[in-house]
Amino acid sequence: MSDRVLALLGTGIVPPDTPVLRADDFGVLRGDGCFETMRVADGTIDAFDAHLTRLARSARSLGLPSPDLAGWRALADDVVAAWTQPGEAILRFVLTRGVEGEAATPTGYALMSPLPDHLVRQRRDGIEVLTLSRGMPADAHARAPWLLGGVKTTSYAVNLAAQRYAQALGADDVLFVSTDGQVLEGPTSTVVWTQTGDTLCTTPTSLGILAGTTVQTLFGRAYGHGFDTAVRPTTVDDLQAATGLWLVSSVRGAVRVRTLDGRPRADDGGLTARVQAVLDFPVPR
Amino acid sequence: MSDRVLALLGTGIVPPDTPVLRADDFGVLRGDGCFETMRVADGTIDAFDAHLTRLARSARSLGLPSPDLAGWRALADDVVAAWTQPGEAILRFVLTRGVEGEAATPTGYALMSPLPDHLVRQRRDGIEVLTLSRGMPADAHARAPWLLGGVKTTSYAVNLAAQRYAQALGADDVLFVSTDGQVLEGPTSTVVWTQTGDTLCTTPTSLGILAGTTVQTLFGRAYGHGFDTAVRPTTVDDLQAATGLWLVSSVRGAVRVRTLDGRPRADDGGLTARVQAVLDFPVPR
Repeated sequence: MSDRVLALLGTGIVPPDTPVLRADDFGVLRGDGCFETMRVADGTIDAFDAHLTRLARSARSLGLPSPDLAGWRALADDVVAAWTQPGEAILRFVLTRGVEGEAATPTGYALMSPLPDHLVRQRRDGIEVLTLSRGMPADAHARAPWLLGGVKTTSYAVNLAAQRYAQALGADDVLFVSTDGQVLEGPTSTVVWTQTGDTLCTTPTSLGILAGTTVQTLFGRAYGHGFDTAVRPTTVDDLQAATGLWLVSSVRGAVRVRTLDGRPRADDGGLTARVQAVLDFPVPR
Repeated sequence: MSDRVLALLGTGIVPPDTPVLRADDFGVLRGDGCFETMRVADGTIDAFDAHLTRLARSARSLGLPSPDLAGWRALADDVVAAWTQPGEAILRFVLTRGVEGEAATPTGYALMSPLPDHLVRQRRDGIEVLTLSRGMPADAHARAPWLLGGVKTTSYAVNLAAQRYAQALGADDVLFVSTDGQVLEGPTSTVVWTQTGDTLCTTPTSLGILAGTTVQTLFGRAYGHGFDTAVRPTTVDDLQAATGLWLVSSVRGAVRVRTLDGRPRADDGGLTARVQAVLDFPVPR
């Protein structure tokens, strides 16, 4: 843990292996909180405002008090200033409902840690992806806000279980599909593809998926890099035929899907390099 | 917190407001753990072996190391021995995957706290229940173990959000329904009903719902109290016509559903008193 930096909302920097959550914190008892994961490079947090905005939106959806955004900004400044290691890092914000039965005082902290090498290597090597059912039809979240579609809660047990399931079968990651055949998202990523030409596509948030901050950056810069963009539903069959296919996330950037359900994908003719150039994350040789 | 007793696996009793979880515990970061909630009365833990067995099953489904059951038994003995308050209490076991990136050492603790009065009163007054979609068809969990059907994970954000949604509309609790109209379970309870005569019914665990320990106790004792038992699927329409309807959980026992989706239910002719007599939890006058 000595390679980490931890700061608590309202307290500031503390030693990173200090226990900070009580046993009766709802964040532990019930996964009752929300989080953000950000990449930090050269002292700069990628898309920080977008992450902060999404944290506030998640908190609102969970009925938590509005986060003190100035406090979170100061917390981020503290941990980034205290960070002394070279290279990229991961910054996580965690906000929980706080201790059961007490006046509503959420628990919040920022945790910074090195970006693991195996994730960096995925930018170069790509990943093998398995499609798995998310158990819900594409319209499950319409008019059902209690299902928390698009809310980045800390209740991620199913996301992790799906990744473990895929990894036990030799794959690297998962792409969730609705029970009626619509492609959704990865457990910790957004799907992006090109069907023909230079149009980057992603799936609509109306499916109850998370609004990805990295796909937002990618699409925002796409025009300047010769790409059009489109938000549209798709199926696994269509993705098998896609000319380019990536999982996109804050930490990894855009990683090429090398096999989908075990089927190797054809060379994408340089599209991955072009997409990665838009995000400009370091890609190892 | 001074009315609570806390003990850590491997450590024993600690002051109840001691922070015990690190910021990088997967139980906090990702709701990656499992739990049990038990009722304690007169120094005895209800259905302790059934809870311990279910904790071990949840751990296995999550790919956690097998819990040290002797250690958990000793932990329970410690907290129950340290408990000095009269009346009923709640004992919770929490087991998480532990700290990220370290050798697999799960975090475990037992937390004992008083049973809140408003839950005890529900045994006398009954509850108003809203049916809400769980967003999944009845067969979603078949052949999809990564969806963690029947696993009591700490990733309960949707369960809590559903209860908050219902409470904002003036109801007390929720009954989840599949997208294709099958009745599932409550967010923290099992549904039990009588359609005609003296047959206590509950829904099948093949729906991906939790195997309730209290319904197991209730059904195990039913014959001796003049009840038959049956496990079968049902619909909301059928429950509206049921002669008796309860939500059953470890802490509350069997609480009568007084209204379902706003429709008052007819007097059940003493069935609630008979069902509660089977469980033998104190019911206030």
